[in-house]
Amino acid sequence: MSGSVWVQARRSDRMNPSIIREILKLTEQPGVLSLAGGLPSPDSFPVEAMRAASERVLADTPLEALQYAASEGFTPLREWIAARRTAAGHPVDAEDVLITSGSQQGLDLVAQVLIDTGTRVGVETPTYLGALQAFAPFEPELVSLDGDGDGPAPEAFADARARFAYLLPNFQNPTGREMPADRRDAVVAAAAAAGTTIVEDDPYGEIWFDEAPPASLASRWPEGVLYLGSFSKVLAPGFRLGYLVAPHELHPKLLQAKQAADLHTPGFNQRVVYEVVKDGFLDEHVPTIRARYRAQRDAMAAALERHLPAGTTWRAPHGGMFFWVRLPEGYDAMSLLPRAVAAGVAYVPGAAFYAGEPDPRTLRLSFVTLSERDIEAGVDRLGRVVADGG
Amino acid sequence: MSGSVWVQARRSDRMNPSIIREILKLTEQPGVLSLAGGLPSPDSFPVEAMRAASERVLADTPLEALQYAASEGFTPLREWIAARRTAAGHPVDAEDVLITSGSQQGLDLVAQVLIDTGTRVGVETPTYLGALQAFAPFEPELVSLDGDGDGPAPEAFADARARFAYLLPNFQNPTGREMPADRRDAVVAAAAAAGTTIVEDDPYGEIWFDEAPPASLASRWPEGVLYLGSFSKVLAPGFRLGYLVAPHELHPKLLQAKQAADLHTPGFNQRVVYEVVKDGFLDEHVPTIRARYRAQRDAMAAALERHLPAGTTWRAPHGGMFFWVRLPEGYDAMSLLPRAVAAGVAYVPGAAFYAGEPDPRTLRLSFVTLSERDIEAGVDRLGRVVADGG
Repeated sequence: MSGSVWVQARRSDRMNPSIIREILKLTEQPGVLSLAGGLPSPDSFPVEAMRAASERVLADTPLEALQYAASEGFTPLREWIAARRTAAGHPVDAEDVLITSGSQQGLDLVAQVLIDTGTRVGVETPTYLGALQAFAPFEPELVSLDGDGDGPAPEAFADARARFAYLLPNFQNPTGREMPADRRDAVVAAAAAAGTTIVEDDPYGEIWFDEAPPASLASRWPEGVLYLGSFSKVLAPGFRLGYLVAPHELHPKLLQAKQAADLHTPGFNQRVVYEVVKDGFLDEHVPTIRARYRAQRDAMAAALERHLPAGTTWRAPHGGMFFWVRLPEGYDAMSLLPRAVAAGVAYVPGAAFYAGEPDPRTLRLSFVTLSERDIEAGVDRLGRVVADGG
Repeated sequence: MSGSVWVQARRSDRMNPSIIREILKLTEQPGVLSLAGGLPSPDSFPVEAMRAASERVLADTPLEALQYAASEGFTPLREWIAARRTAAGHPVDAEDVLITSGSQQGLDLVAQVLIDTGTRVGVETPTYLGALQAFAPFEPELVSLDGDGDGPAPEAFADARARFAYLLPNFQNPTGREMPADRRDAVVAAAAAAGTTIVEDDPYGEIWFDEAPPASLASRWPEGVLYLGSFSKVLAPGFRLGYLVAPHELHPKLLQAKQAADLHTPGFNQRVVYEVVKDGFLDEHVPTIRARYRAQRDAMAAALERHLPAGTTWRAPHGGMFFWVRLPEGYDAMSLLPRAVAAGVAYVPGAAFYAGEPDPRTLRLSFVTLSERDIEAGVDRLGRVVADGG
C-alpha cells in the first residue's frame, strides 16, 4: 500500500480470510436456508442451568470470579475434567489439564509449542479448517495423510515423516467420519513407529447418535498424544471454554504460551461451567442433544435420498454435526454455490478443508442449525440446483 | 529428555517461566505482606452492577450470549468504545475496534501481525513484562529505548531503527511514569521520522489521581499508532476484556489472527460489560477507584518516606498501580528478596522488566492490593531489611 507507515510480518501473507466466513456472509441474505454454518442448535443451550449457576457464582464467590486467576485454570474444573476423562478410559491427572479459551485456543497453543518454520505436520484429507488457520502463522509444511471412510491410512505415516499428526477420530469436521477401534490401534502404532506424535481433537466425542465411539487415541498412547476437548458442543459455544490434556513434559511450555496468549481464561466462565457440570448435569443434558441431532441427521439422510440425483454419494454420520457429500462426476461445488444461494440454500464447498489438492466435487452440510422441516426444504432446493447442471 | 517422543518448537527455548509468577508463589506463604502482585483491589469490583447485568443478559438475550459470535466483537460494545475514545480526543470508527480477551491478547495479536524473526522492536527501559512474553515466541530483536522519568528519549528512535515501538505513556508498569504532552509530541515526531510505528498500551489511562493524562499518542498520529485498551482496571480483570484500535490497513490481518487465536471473545462477557457501561456507569465508578488508589498511593509515599534509608529514591506516581524504587548504591533487589520474604514482605525485583541490561538496584511495589495499614506495615518491614544490609 503506497505511503503506508506499517510493515507487517511475513506470516501475514499466509493469513487469508476464512472462506467459510465469506460464505457465511453470503448466506445471511433473507430467504436463504443455510446448511453452511457449524452453529449448534440454540435450542440445545441449557439456559436455565447457566442462569442458576451464574447467580450462584456471583452470590458465593464474586470477588474470586472477577479477579485475575491462575493460568492453568480453575482447579475444581480441572479435577472434574480429569475424572471424566479417566472414566472414559484415558487416565488423566488434574495437573495435566490446561483450561483454554475454546479448543481453538488449544490449537494455537499447540502450534506455538510444536511448530517451527517448515515443521512437517500431518493432517487428514480433508481436515478442520480452524486448525489449518491456527497452524498457518507458524509456517508448517502440511502433509496430507491419505485415507478412507475410516480415517487416515496407517501406511501414510511413514512417508509423511511428520513431527506430529493432527487427527479428529470422532465424527470429524468436515467429513463426519469416525475412526473404528482397530484403525485407532493401527494409526497409533504407525505414528509411534514413524516417530510422529499425535494431537487429538475431540469436540464431538460426546455427540454420538448410535453408540459411543471407541476409546480415544490418547487412552491408547498417553505419552504420545495431546488431547483437546471442549464444552462448546455439550453446553454452549459462547462461553469459549475448552481444555487440553498434555503429557507432563509439554505442560510448562504450554502454560507459558497460555500466559502470553491471554493470561488466563475468564474465571467467571470457568466457575459457571463447573457449577453447571459438577453434579452430573451432562449425563442428563447430553442425551437430549443426541436425540435432537439424531432426528436432524435422519431428516437430512432422508432428504438427501429423496432429492439428490444419482451419482451423488454420502455416508450418514454416526455423530457430530455434518454430512460430507460428493457430487457426480464433472460437478464443482465452489462454482455451483452462487446458483445454490440464488435458489435459497447454502453449503460450504469442500475445497476449503483440504491442505493439499482439493476434491472439487465435495461439499459439507450441517444438520444441527435448521429444523427438520427446513433441512428437507434446503436439501430439496440443493437437489434442484444440482439436477439443473454440473 | 531422553526417550521423549515429543519434539518441541525452537521458540520453546525462549519461553521461560515468568519471574513474577515464581515470586508470587513465594509470597503466598502465610504472614507475607505482598507488594509484589498487580492485582486490582477486589473492593473496587462493581459486583452488584455485574450481577444485575448478567441477569439482564441471560433474561433478554440468552441464546445470542451463548452462541458463537463475530470475531470482531459485539457491535454495541465496539460502538461504545469508539465513542469513548473519540470523546477522549482520539477519533475512532467502531469498524476499527477489535474486542480482545484482555489486552494481553491484543499484544499477542500485534506480535503475530507485526513481528518476523529478527524484527527490531523498540521497548521502554524498563517495560511491561507481559509484552516481552507475548512478543518472545515470534523472536524479535528487542531494542531498549533509553529515557528518563518522562518516558523514552526522542533521540533514541533514530538509532533504534525499530519496525515499531511498544510504549506505555500513562503510569507505566513497572515505573509508574507518565509521559508529558510535549514528550508525547516529540516521541511521535521522532518515531515518524525514523519510520517506526507505535503500539500504545494504555491499561491505566483512566486510573489517574491528580489530573487526567495528556491525550494519547494515537490521537497525535492516528495512522501510525495502534492503541490497546482494557476493562481490567476500570471494572474487573477476571472477565478478560480488552480491545485494540488499529489503523484500517492492519484490521484484516488482526482479525484473522483473532479468529485463529480463539474465534472470538465470549459473547456473554462482552454483553455483560456493555450492559454495565452503556449508561454512564464508569463516570460514577472510576472516580471511586481513583479515590481509593490515591489514598493508597499517599499511604505508600508516606511509608517510603518514613522507613526507607537515605540513598533510596522513588517518585510518587500520578496514577496506575506501582511505585518504582531504587535502592542505595551496592544493593541488589533480587538477592535481597529472600530476606525480605523471610521478614514478611514481598516485591518484584526490577530486573524482571528489562529487555536488556537490568538495573539491579530497582524494585516494583504495588499499592493497590493491600490496605493502607498493611502498606505501612509492609514498607516498614522492607525498610528494616534494606537498612540491615545491601
